[in-house]
Amino acid sequence: MGKANGVPAGGVAARRTDPIRLPEDDLIAWLRGQPGTRGLGDDCAILPAPARGRELILKCDQFVENVHFRQSTYRPRQAGKAALARALSDLAATGATPHWCLLSLAFPSDHMRWMQGFLGGLLELAREERVELVGGDLARGDTIAATVFVAGSAPRGKSLRRSGAQPGDGIFVSGVLGAAAVALRRQEARIPQPRLELGRYLRSRATACMDISDGLSLDLHRLCRESVVAAEIDRPLPLAVSATDRDAWVGGEDYELLFTAASAPRVYRGVAITRIGTIVRGKPGDMTWNGRRRLPVGYDHFLRPIRT
Amino acid sequence: MGKANGVPAGGVAARRTDPIRLPEDDLIAWLRGQPGTRGLGDDCAILPAPARGRELILKCDQFVENVHFRQSTYRPRQAGKAALARALSDLAATGATPHWCLLSLAFPSDHMRWMQGFLGGLLELAREERVELVGGDLARGDTIAATVFVAGSAPRGKSLRRSGAQPGDGIFVSGVLGAAAVALRRQEARIPQPRLELGRYLRSRATACMDISDGLSLDLHRLCRESVVAAEIDRPLPLAVSATDRDAWVGGEDYELLFTAASAPRVYRGVAITRIGTIVRGKPGDMTWNGRRRLPVGYDHFLRPIRT
Repeated sequence: MGKANGVPAGGVAARRTDPIRLPEDDLIAWLRGQPGTRGLGDDCAILPAPARGRELILKCDQFVENVHFRQSTYRPRQAGKAALARALSDLAATGATPHWCLLSLAFPSDHMRWMQGFLGGLLELAREERVELVGGDLARGDTIAATVFVAGSAPRGKSLRRSGAQPGDGIFVSGVLGAAAVALRRQEARIPQPRLELGRYLRSRATACMDISDGLSLDLHRLCRESVVAAEIDRPLPLAVSATDRDAWVGGEDYELLFTAASAPRVYRGVAITRIGTIVRGKPGDMTWNGRRRLPVGYDHFLRPIRT
Repeated sequence: MGKANGVPAGGVAARRTDPIRLPEDDLIAWLRGQPGTRGLGDDCAILPAPARGRELILKCDQFVENVHFRQSTYRPRQAGKAALARALSDLAATGATPHWCLLSLAFPSDHMRWMQGFLGGLLELAREERVELVGGDLARGDTIAATVFVAGSAPRGKSLRRSGAQPGDGIFVSGVLGAAAVALRRQEARIPQPRLELGRYLRSRATACMDISDGLSLDLHRLCRESVVAAEIDRPLPLAVSATDRDAWVGGEDYELLFTAASAPRVYRGVAITRIGTIVRGKPGDMTWNGRRRLPVGYDHFLRPIRT
């Protein structure tokens, strides 16, 4: 992990042995000893290129205190897991296999122990998903802000995109929707499950795919615009316990896969798959739900009051 | 560029045509029309893998308001250029050729025009350096925070690291030092020049390399620790106009290359190269300057008062 950059100033880079109380070089030294990390000693991560016949898949995703989570709701390990899970969900939506992650972190200097918990949770999920932490940078901030960068690969030309949906395709979602909206109401932490296996399965089967991060309504609208098609939702949405249709339609952060295909199984490796409608010809991005035309509604950072 | 993720909420994703006043989908639509971008329509960037015989080089770097820059000092275009330049400097230090960048941005919703300027500046430098903006994500924040992720490649096994310095090697720096400290005193913006050409030239010539981001003292100490050697600085430091030895020694953010090699030319393609000392056997990380032992001194985010 590269060192932080900052304003010139005089100060001793301490070299005590307790990683909790220590500044950045020591936090990095502690990290380098953790399983699931690789390198971290150079200016950049130096990595083998994906194997022949594969393409490179890259994504970065922010996880910011008081925007995406609160310290009162998320324990440090949960926050670290959630930060990585969200980024991996994007890789899942392209059908990629994740290989590496990098992490830019800003946090208050009295949060060294909190950040160790955060990093521990992130590395736990990373090991489960066989992702190595290979770099990043640290800075001090008034609040916690993490940007997770993930890199993976997929067979060349086989990655899923938002743009391939065809009239007549079924519209499917994985799992259940609205769970994140319910967790938010209850002020509970929620760690999404990136649908990596399902994404890889869909590579040769789905015509278009994305993950649902800003709500089904807005994300389906985006998929349809990219595919230059319209959508008819005419079947029940698969709802999480205690979730309403509205939670599923406009609630974001479910991180389930939304995809279009000629057909799909009802379950893939334990993950439910539900057909909710059909792609149709029409004005790109137009949607009907239960026969009524619907405007895209969902989370937009720049129209919403910030969550503080 | 992927959409921002956020808390579930109801709200209309507006689709007006003025990119200045509009929320994230419209900012992304505007960005997709800019030269120097690629893709931005899918959950991830889907890219060709580096050519056979090359390795992949990845780095992320933060550029945060009131930590790394102030709005009162940096015009938007300058901030955008500086954010990318800092990340490219890390690629330069490994001898990599940059290919792509991704950008995670958080900013206040009344800063759409400011961010357009920022993005314009970033893309201007990206086009100069033949780097494509291929993805990222947006979120709203109380202050401006950018994380730039860069990806590049180098011939396999030829990337420069911090760990190869050998006793007897000369210690060299590119350009002049202390310019960033002078700019900070004068409250002037400064856009570093990433030494990409020099980095590539050094690939088969330097034994170790890094960029100077936290000050010569701290960064040389880190290089020596990674290389398990000590350093003697016994020649004049190349100083920027108005800079002092202390500016060069502890001032960060100069983004010049620090490298070790048997020898080096005095100038490479217009960039001065100065030998400042010699790698010696000794306790890893130990340094002498003008015959006196020196402790590493420089910028550490978690020991310094935050710059507000």
